[in-house]
Amino acid sequence: MKWENFSKLNAYARLGSLAPVDVKAVMSGESGAERVRSYKAPMAEGMVYSYAAKAVDEDVLAALQALADEAELTDKYAALYNGEVINTGEKRLVLHQLCRGQLGEDVVADGVNKREFYLAQQKRAAEFADKIHEGGIVNEAGEKFTTVVQIGIGGSDLGPRALYLALESWAKANNTLLMDAHFISNVDPDDASAVLAGIDVAHSIFVLVSKSGTTLETLTNESFVKNAIKAAGLDPSKHMIAVTSDASPLANNPDYLDSFYMDDYIGGRYSATSMVGGAILSLAFGPDVFARILDGAAKEDALAKNPDIRENAALLDALIGVYERNFLGYGMTAVLPYSQALSRFPAHLQQLDMESNGKSVNRFGEPIDYVTGPVIFGEPGTNGQHSFYQLLHQGTNIIPLQFIGFRQNQMDNDVLIQGTTSQQKLSANVAAQIVAFACGRENENRNKFFAGGRPSSIIVADKLTPEILGALLAHFENKVMFQGFVWNVNSFDQEGVQLGKILAKAVLAQETEGALTEYSKLLGIF
Amino acid sequence: MKWENFSKLNAYARLGSLAPVDVKAVMSGESGAERVRSYKAPMAEGMVYSYAAKAVDEDVLAALQALADEAELTDKYAALYNGEVINTGEKRLVLHQLCRGQLGEDVVADGVNKREFYLAQQKRAAEFADKIHEGGIVNEAGEKFTTVVQIGIGGSDLGPRALYLALESWAKANNTLLMDAHFISNVDPDDASAVLAGIDVAHSIFVLVSKSGTTLETLTNESFVKNAIKAAGLDPSKHMIAVTSDASPLANNPDYLDSFYMDDYIGGRYSATSMVGGAILSLAFGPDVFARILDGAAKEDALAKNPDIRENAALLDALIGVYERNFLGYGMTAVLPYSQALSRFPAHLQQLDMESNGKSVNRFGEPIDYVTGPVIFGEPGTNGQHSFYQLLHQGTNIIPLQFIGFRQNQMDNDVLIQGTTSQQKLSANVAAQIVAFACGRENENRNKFFAGGRPSSIIVADKLTPEILGALLAHFENKVMFQGFVWNVNSFDQEGVQLGKILAKAVLAQETEGALTEYSKLLGIF
Repeated sequence: MKWENFSKLNAYARLGSLAPVDVKAVMSGESGAERVRSYKAPMAEGMVYSYAAKAVDEDVLAALQALADEAELTDKYAALYNGEVINTGEKRLVLHQLCRGQLGEDVVADGVNKREFYLAQQKRAAEFADKIHEGGIVNEAGEKFTTVVQIGIGGSDLGPRALYLALESWAKANNTLLMDAHFISNVDPDDASAVLAGIDVAHSIFVLVSKSGTTLETLTNESFVKNAIKAAGLDPSKHMIAVTSDASPLANNPDYLDSFYMDDYIGGRYSATSMVGGAILSLAFGPDVFARILDGAAKEDALAKNPDIRENAALLDALIGVYERNFLGYGMTAVLPYSQALSRFPAHLQQLDMESNGKSVNRFGEPIDYVTGPVIFGEPGTNGQHSFYQLLHQGTNIIPLQFIGFRQNQMDNDVLIQGTTSQQKLSANVAAQIVAFACGRENENRNKFFAGGRPSSIIVADKLTPEILGALLAHFENKVMFQGFVWNVNSFDQEGVQLGKILAKAVLAQETEGALTEYSKLLGIF
Repeated sequence: MKWENFSKLNAYARLGSLAPVDVKAVMSGESGAERVRSYKAPMAEGMVYSYAAKAVDEDVLAALQALADEAELTDKYAALYNGEVINTGEKRLVLHQLCRGQLGEDVVADGVNKREFYLAQQKRAAEFADKIHEGGIVNEAGEKFTTVVQIGIGGSDLGPRALYLALESWAKANNTLLMDAHFISNVDPDDASAVLAGIDVAHSIFVLVSKSGTTLETLTNESFVKNAIKAAGLDPSKHMIAVTSDASPLANNPDYLDSFYMDDYIGGRYSATSMVGGAILSLAFGPDVFARILDGAAKEDALAKNPDIRENAALLDALIGVYERNFLGYGMTAVLPYSQALSRFPAHLQQLDMESNGKSVNRFGEPIDYVTGPVIFGEPGTNGQHSFYQLLHQGTNIIPLQFIGFRQNQMDNDVLIQGTTSQQKLSANVAAQIVAFACGRENENRNKFFAGGRPSSIIVADKLTPEILGALLAHFENKVMFQGFVWNVNSFDQEGVQLGKILAKAVLAQETEGALTEYSKLLGIF
């Protein structure tokens, strides 16, 4: 297996030589209808990835298949799940998929079968959650815990928070919202204060999440929370659990009711299906719901093994994104879920994608001569339609769009207005937007003219269930992984976050000079 | 006064001929310290706009001043606040600044002095809020209302929501959180269901916000809410007020307890300081707090009259943004407030900026030959540092950054860890980031190498109070307005949202063809 820079591949030259597809032309009339019928790839749980409105045709697809083959993308995926050192910078395996299924060979590291290790943690967390729910573990007054609060930042916050919010209403409607969940992340002291003011500390379990056990924000917020618990006359060690690596100072520590483990082979932004998401989601929704998320993710992971790009949605989505980035010159992607429950899913994907592939060196630390990861942003529709879509439709730059739509809403309640339900209106809007962006509309008044030619894809699912959510999560994790393989970057480290940490420490130690001293004064730090 | 395309101005050619400033070089050593001391502009309420880390020098600043003069930017602002028809597409005045102060001549439209009209609405809303707070207006059981829920989308949601969240903790700490506020926006039926499940309908006032009284999402959600009120055995007309134009079907309508008015001269995304924000904020925090927001905004509006770019932060911020967009080739701006309270402020600015200046025709409906508004995205720090900053530091594209920092947090509670408070850590981080982005750092390991040269500005304030919040809001409104003047676009219409509405209606009426029919089937709409 070869790890070569993208620009060295034959496929790179071939892709560059292709005539761009006129999205407006091919999406108009019967041609457009035929594309919607045929340009779709199957996903887990009956989902569909539709790429009809993307700037691809048979020539582009053939070139993308050739790229997938030449770059050995599914072989590299197999190497990853079979336990090779894919995170070259930190010399680590990359095993988050192993949390949800065995895709290949047994992976033994540090003398441990890692699948068994992750399963054992899931089992322990499930047992712990069951005890909390059944009253086997109670607070000092012998009362049940009702609330769970995650203390974590970055991957320990965004993914778990996005998943919790995605299923909160569904769980209420299905009588499986067992505990309310809240999140404390920012070192801004007002974040912890605001969360603590809104909960009943005496009936709350806090989940402290830090792989290393040394994350500044998280330890600071732990102190905040411990002060609040003590101020309520309670014992912090009876209200906290830890999610960490088994070598961290938080592991097996009497300051916590229990501790659950991930390891160095699961990066923060890929950790939502590890104990980082598993502890809080098992507590909030019950272990069965968390298991269903894992099932959906495992099915999607399995589909990502297929070397045929038309049968592998994550791979195809990745390749189309690369084509847009490197050959069509688009620098951004908007993620637009038509579901209020996915309100923070774009923020999670923003980290997942930008932190993984926002790199300027290849996996061997050598400079590269092509652009890598795009900027990701987004908000739920229809809200975004009344906000930034103006620029997407009529701005001077083209921004590829990634829609997500559902046939049904999560709760039973809906209302019939003017002959249609709200869910029908929601779905009608996403269908309309895709066509509006692709086909545009003529108008003699240039202010009301839509050029069209603005590409999008959509993932369509029946309903946002735990399985569908897990599959969606895995789809994007695998998309980002495949793009990293194409760009030949290490998608699993994040050296770009280090310099800021070093300089912040210098400020706090009052060891600054030049501009940093002046900014410190301006901000009144000391 | 001339309205000419940017590319026709002498300043355009001059700006294009300037040598780019090497941010890394000028921000290093004593030069950097001197820039931080001198490259700052005053703002209202003691705030400072620091542009030391931007790619500007004396030559660039002189050229930007020449642009401001040649394009008559402050004259155009004066024309706007003196009541000229600045919104050329819709043939409307643009009067949102008049909600918070009289900047110029009396503006009389439709036979009404508009300043007096807006003041009268503020006074009526204040009296209404006082009655609610004092128990002069109560629910059917004679009990006080405790909760207020806004029903609105786009500008009727994002701005008011961002402002409410910005002051919620501050208000709690200052005993002026008089009612909890919630927001229903999305046509997704689960949005309304989730909000309604979390509140006590019997003690809730709903604020229905729609200028035209015809917004699909808002009327649909109104029905949702009315059903919930009726299901609780209550009378909807005793629980709802309307914010609308005085000609809309919602005005003076017995279905509402009262109605408060804005008009066609205040665009949705500029309406946070009109009754759109005023009703809910007066109810949540009391009329005095809303008045303080208006005071801060009015002071900032007054500063924006200054033709000297070094004394006019909004103007300078606008011009630097134009320089980055049109001459340095940067297509995005990240808004990064170091305050959890500003968690949704970037989403508001995203609408404000992208909906205003995401245009491809000038104010006369003629095509233009230069790029306009950038993509805006952002999340609070330090959270973003653990998410997408990797790409900002080491990605292959440069993205200008707009930081916002505070010297103090909003609540009194803080914790001392390793000798510093959380607030000090927060501020140290933003100072460190600016310098890390600007100056970078050498490293033989290219994976740990930071190129630097990544420009940023920062607005620094003491503390996020109502006045500061109002001033911040006005700063960005005025920045966007000035950029629209430079680009010669109409920043006050949004024709780009219309096509999607038309096609969605066609779907719901089952009057589709081609791709739209197929997408409708895929989404299972009928």
